[in-house]
Amino acid sequence: MYKLLAKDGRAKRGEFHTVHGTIQTPVFMNVGTTAAIKGAVSTQDLQEMKTQVELSNTYHLHVRPGDEVIKKLGGLHKFMVWDKPILTDSGGFQVFSLAGLRKIKEEGVYFNSHVDGRKIFMGPEESMRIQSNLASTIAMAFDECPPHPAERSYMQDSVDRTTRWLIRCREELNRLNTLEDTINKNQMLFGINQGGTYRDIRIEHAKRISELDLNGYALGGLAVGESHAEMYYIIEETMPYLPLEKPTYLMGVGTPENILESVERGVDFFDCVYPARNGRHGHAYTNHGKMNLLNAKYELDSAPIEEGCGCPVCRHYSRAYIRHLLKAKEMLGLRLMVTHNLYFYNNMMEEIRGAIEEQRYAEYKKNKLNGFAQGEE
Amino acid sequence: MYKLLAKDGRAKRGEFHTVHGTIQTPVFMNVGTTAAIKGAVSTQDLQEMKTQVELSNTYHLHVRPGDEVIKKLGGLHKFMVWDKPILTDSGGFQVFSLAGLRKIKEEGVYFNSHVDGRKIFMGPEESMRIQSNLASTIAMAFDECPPHPAERSYMQDSVDRTTRWLIRCREELNRLNTLEDTINKNQMLFGINQGGTYRDIRIEHAKRISELDLNGYALGGLAVGESHAEMYYIIEETMPYLPLEKPTYLMGVGTPENILESVERGVDFFDCVYPARNGRHGHAYTNHGKMNLLNAKYELDSAPIEEGCGCPVCRHYSRAYIRHLLKAKEMLGLRLMVTHNLYFYNNMMEEIRGAIEEQRYAEYKKNKLNGFAQGEE
Repeated sequence: MYKLLAKDGRAKRGEFHTVHGTIQTPVFMNVGTTAAIKGAVSTQDLQEMKTQVELSNTYHLHVRPGDEVIKKLGGLHKFMVWDKPILTDSGGFQVFSLAGLRKIKEEGVYFNSHVDGRKIFMGPEESMRIQSNLASTIAMAFDECPPHPAERSYMQDSVDRTTRWLIRCREELNRLNTLEDTINKNQMLFGINQGGTYRDIRIEHAKRISELDLNGYALGGLAVGESHAEMYYIIEETMPYLPLEKPTYLMGVGTPENILESVERGVDFFDCVYPARNGRHGHAYTNHGKMNLLNAKYELDSAPIEEGCGCPVCRHYSRAYIRHLLKAKEMLGLRLMVTHNLYFYNNMMEEIRGAIEEQRYAEYKKNKLNGFAQGEE
Repeated sequence: MYKLLAKDGRAKRGEFHTVHGTIQTPVFMNVGTTAAIKGAVSTQDLQEMKTQVELSNTYHLHVRPGDEVIKKLGGLHKFMVWDKPILTDSGGFQVFSLAGLRKIKEEGVYFNSHVDGRKIFMGPEESMRIQSNLASTIAMAFDECPPHPAERSYMQDSVDRTTRWLIRCREELNRLNTLEDTINKNQMLFGINQGGTYRDIRIEHAKRISELDLNGYALGGLAVGESHAEMYYIIEETMPYLPLEKPTYLMGVGTPENILESVERGVDFFDCVYPARNGRHGHAYTNHGKMNLLNAKYELDSAPIEEGCGCPVCRHYSRAYIRHLLKAKEMLGLRLMVTHNLYFYNNMMEEIRGAIEEQRYAEYKKNKLNGFAQGEE
């Protein structure tokens, strides 16, 4: 399903074929936690924002409106009106970060809903059933996200359990994909490599899960408090032990700088809430660094956020207007910011793909980082 | 500038020519208080929502970002990227409803800003200067909006002062329209008829302001607490004393029913916050009455808000999806609701125009009201 089109150093340029169309990698997935992009961006809008993949959160959709509801409505694609690929996470990360009191057992995790406090159990089989109901293109394996920092012995036990869970996930998804009333019988599974910043645990785990011949492999449990240098080191050391002929996904990362560094180390897929969250706080990404649109110096500035930007916002609206909307707390201000930022990320990925194809990635990355360093902030 | 194309009973079908294009009447103006439609609807979106005229609020824009700022940026049209007609209110209504302590004097009104409490003075000349800075297509005269109910003697004094203010408005706007740095030298002025529910004061006032040969005439101070029957009575009694060859505008009204009744009495222009405000509260307008999208019965409903509706929302999204967005407090839910509701109003006005042209307005109105009465709520 994955075709490696070009390499430039360790940077990969690939094509990932799915039942919902082909994903050109490296790719940034646009986060729509509850089946909606934050900032009032619609799936119709995504069409003109170079979005290739939408990412939704299994835990949130399980709690509300419920994956059974979405299944009855024909699955996530039909529900949110998006016919391109969708990746769903496993729910694991939210269970470990959002939910109330929880107990981790061999069978799975017992926890309380963050919405109404009701008790929920989720294990590998439950996560697969929920994701099968959602009928996403790519399901993520249910794993434990260990705390950072974690003792070596805790980490080793956790990673071992994550491996056992992964095998159960694969088995359950294979079964679900053969059921008659399954909406997407070609749902794919990505496994998740864990191990924190323990190089040897990461590598050992990468080797073990690579043997399972999954559709793709993610690095989880990074960008959780370790330094950027540690993160890059772990990516660099672990990546050679994941199959080159499968896509790799660095979960929840990150800044444009993080992405540029990680692409260089062979990552295909990314996702992060930064472009939407920072947009809502008035921060716009540009090729000359981040801009704070709330800054008084933009009060009379009739230029777009970034000259030459082809996004639907920069083609029409000025810094002064967006600043006014943000100051007046008009929702439209948030929408315009999020739109620009997601486009910026998606467009950067397109540039990255071009640079790898043309074997000029190192130079591209250097110029891009120099631009960011001019930082308007 | 106004051309009466057809009459059906007292219902008027007109065309109002402005420097920003022709307005087909009857028309519903879409309210964008702070130079933005509530609910994250952009001026680009308005293009596919049959919007003819955008209405912005002078008081709000004077306070933030400031009319001088907007003038320096080339006026409201350029600021919010909308090249069709814009009507600005006079600021009077907000001064009388939003602002803190105020004193009404012959020269104008002293009051405190609702944003930062600073003292502001606004009289006829100030209102005209602000609206000239905003460079709207149509400026509204600065008037007093008397409280309801008001003593007869208070009302008479207030209306007399409003007439004196109107004359000062006309004089000042004429002067401003000749200044070299005025952005819209063809800015038009609508006078406002007042008098509460006192029939004779209304009529006397209508006669006096009609002599001033303004570009249009509004009925103000209605829908402020009187019954619908009283409102319709006042419209019916007053309208014959306003010039037939000028457009009439019923300010701040109202429900689809109110509009149908008022068109029948000769009204050309309407504006109201209902479609946007009700949309944000989950209420959708349809030809079968209002629907509450939060209602549990829509949880699994894959139909659009209204079958056959041509709005950008009904062409794509389901009741179930919109209900989910509203429940999850996703901004996108508000945007989809507001979009549908504004389209519903704009589309109804188009139907109204067709019905008047074809001399079947009474029948159209009857059928429409019957449909609303099926009310899903």
